[in-house]
Order: sequence, then C-alpha cells, then structure tokens
Amino acid sequence: MRNILLKIAYSGVNYHGWQIQDNAGTVQARIQSAAYDIFGYCPDIKACSRTDTGVHANEFALNFKTDSNISIEKIPDAFNHFLPNDIRVFSAETVNIDFHARYDCLGKEYKYIFLNSKYDDPFRVGLVTKYPYPIDVEKLNLASKHFIGTHDFSSFCASGSSVENHIRTIFNSKVERNENDVIFIISGNGFLYNMVRIMAGTLLAVNENKIQADEIPDIILSKNRNKAGITAPPHGLYLNKVFYNEEEIV
Amino acid sequence: MRNILLKIAYSGVNYHGWQIQDNAGTVQARIQSAAYDIFGYCPDIKACSRTDTGVHANEFALNFKTDSNISIEKIPDAFNHFLPNDIRVFSAETVNIDFHARYDCLGKEYKYIFLNSKYDDPFRVGLVTKYPYPIDVEKLNLASKHFIGTHDFSSFCASGSSVENHIRTIFNSKVERNENDVIFIISGNGFLYNMVRIMAGTLLAVNENKIQADEIPDIILSKNRNKAGITAPPHGLYLNKVFYNEEEIV
Repeated sequence: MRNILLKIAYSGVNYHGWQIQDNAGTVQARIQSAAYDIFGYCPDIKACSRTDTGVHANEFALNFKTDSNISIEKIPDAFNHFLPNDIRVFSAETVNIDFHARYDCLGKEYKYIFLNSKYDDPFRVGLVTKYPYPIDVEKLNLASKHFIGTHDFSSFCASGSSVENHIRTIFNSKVERNENDVIFIISGNGFLYNMVRIMAGTLLAVNENKIQADEIPDIILSKNRNKAGITAPPHGLYLNKVFYNEEEIV
Repeated sequence: MRNILLKIAYSGVNYHGWQIQDNAGTVQARIQSAAYDIFGYCPDIKACSRTDTGVHANEFALNFKTDSNISIEKIPDAFNHFLPNDIRVFSAETVNIDFHARYDCLGKEYKYIFLNSKYDDPFRVGLVTKYPYPIDVEKLNLASKHFIGTHDFSSFCASGSSVENHIRTIFNSKVERNENDVIFIISGNGFLYNMVRIMAGTLLAVNENKIQADEIPDIILSKNRNKAGITAPPHGLYLNKVFYNEEEIV
C-alpha cells in the first residue's frame, strides 16, 4: 500500500468548487473519475482544503492510498489523460503512509488578482476581478501588513462557518503591481471561510477611503464581520501554494 | 454620416472565426448584434480580415458608417455592454468617410504562441499550442529571418485559397522566449490563407531537424506547399496588430 500526494492546478471557471456534490460538476468529482479510470476503483481522497465555486488553484494538494504498482513518474500523465484540460496534475510523490493532505498542511499561500483596467481581458474571463479605478498599490501594501501575526480573525470570517477557533497566524502579506494586475498575496498557517476574499474587499475599501489602513488592527480586535469590507468575488482568488514538511516525502 | 473605426480583442475559443455564417456562432455575428442593440439597425461592417475558428485577436479592426450621434467616447462601453466578455471593444475613432478597414490596411502583425511545457496550462485552454519537447529558440529565430522580404509565398498558402497574387512583403520576423512561452512574431503587408500557421509548423520542423533553416529560401522558391511544414493548430495564433495611416483618423 502506498500513500500518494498529488499537486494539481485548476481553473475554477467551469466548476462548483472542489468538493464533490450532487447535481453539480466539481474538481473532486473529476479527480475521482480519473482515479477510477486508472485504478479500477475510487480511492478515498483527502484534500488540503476546499475551494468555492469559481475559485482557482495554481497549487492544490490531495492524497490517496493505493495498492496499484503504477510507477510514480507515470501518475501525472495517467491522470492528465483522463482529466479535462482545465485540471492538470503536475506532480506525484510517495509520502509517509500516515500523511494527510489537510491535517499535515503547515500553511498555504493565496493570491487575489485585480485587473486594474477599464476593460475586461477577453482571455481571462472568470480568472480576474476587474477594478477600473486607480489603485494606490503602496498604500494597500502597507495596509495589508496589518494582517501579519497571530490574531482572532472573526471579523474576516463569513457567517455560517462551523469552525470554532478563529485564531490564525499570517506569515506574510503584500500587494504588488504587475502591469495591469494588482495582486494581493497572503500566506498563513490556515484561513477561515472567505477570509482572503474579505481581506481583498477590505483593501478595496482602503483604496476608496471607506476604511483607513490604520483602522485594520481595531477591525481585527472588534471580531465583528460588519466592520470589515465586502467579500470580493471568487474569480480573482487562487490557492497559490500549499506547504508541507519535506520529510513527509518518502 | 460618420465612419467609425473600432479596435477589438477577442478569444476565438468559443467562436467559429470572425465571419458571419449560418448555424455557427461567430465574432462578426456578436458585433452585428451589439450594433443592432445600440443603433437600432445593423450597419454594414467592413473588417480588416477574417480569422479562422479558434484563432484569437489582440487587435482586430473594423469600420462601419452611422448617422447616430452617440459620442465617440461612449461607443466602446456601449458595445461592451451588449457583447460577451470574451469580445471587447477597446477603442473607437472617427475616420475619413472613405476609409475601409480591409483596403486601407497597411499591414498586420501576428503572434503564434507555443507553450513549451510538459503540461497544459489549465488557465489557457485553447489559447496556446503545447509543445513539450526542447526548443532551440535562437535557431528558430535565425530560421524565421528567411521569411523577411518580398516573396511569392505559395509554399506557405493553404490549397483552396482563391487569392491569385501570392506575393507578400514580410517586414519583420522573430522567435523569442518568455518563460515557458515560445513566441513567433511576424509582420507584413498581407498574409495568405493559413500562412502564419504553416510558417509556425515549418519552424517546428526546423526544431526537429526535419527541415534545415537554410533550406527555407529554396522552399519559398519552390512555390510548393508540400515542401513546407505542417499547418500548426489555430489555438496558438493571434492577430496582434493592424496598421493604418494615422492620417485616416479625423
């Protein structure tokens, strides 16, 4: 029995998020279907997290156990043969038998892309969030630094979340420009439901002077979702990296 | 009566090319439908050229005449309001009343993008042509220089074309790398049917040593389509720029 860690990338445009559900196409359903085609049965798949409808992943991790003796080098191509082109497996590694993609995850990095342009990009429909007004990138970068550290992020958690502990540690947070893209990049040991999208919406409120950057620490302390900005749309959000202890890899 | 020049960009992924046809969605059909919504009638639209099914445009030009007094500044937003997101109007200018987007076109630039990677890019399905083997970019760049000049390009014209004069002037031609993208960029006063795609296929044959770079002048002289390489797939091709005399703009 081997435990296999897959790293995949996908566009969320055509999917109702990661997690399998009735009557809606999801990334997990496609992965399970491909696994069934390869192995002849459907292994129990553990994922690093969920993503919402329309959210993308440059790197998403999952693991499953199998008795198959297919060589590890051939696994990405085997999956890619059966997967649609908007979901790609780009790495497969053998990991310790007890490894679990969610419980052993040390942290994640997310990216939120605002297209700072008057016009939509016809080649990135559903892949960015258009924001046509001027953006003060340096101001937003400084504002984003207030997220760094260990805080109770209840103000940045969508209501309806069943998670009880809202304390998370943010490792790094920044806003940078790449041509017309203004990109918010944030890494941490874990993220609450809609946390990055609410942070992105809060940064837009800072840009529009509806919230001042130096009010962010008080917004965090308030533990009040209503004090933060809107939830930015899903289309701009990418799970960008997933961190594991390298020693898990056999 | 005003003559309006529109510059548009579109992804060809969801369209059967530019030109209107029965029973298939085309970019022209969408533009005409939007024009009808704006002006209340369908103006006669003259386009700089056609593009095939699956081919894209970063810049495509068309013109039409109208009695409407809608201000020129508002025309892009008016079209974009009625167009799907994968077709965008990014400029509108008033031009001389006799201006014709095709007959007054001084030249065009095309781009062909090879994704030089083992894996497809899930965010650019239908927007690049994957080529997973090593590419000698400098060799292909030098090979592409043989296209420059005034030649009879019959060897690089798909059979079935009704155009009789196959002499065209290529202004510039180059191949460059941008991370995993290997991009063939070529400009000239006009292009025959499938000409850029056959040139791109010929460059791949040079990469694979099926054709030597210094054989390209003889291939041109042969006027024999069978001497050149394959027709590369449409997905990698972009009409990139369309050149007009600035004095046409009123």
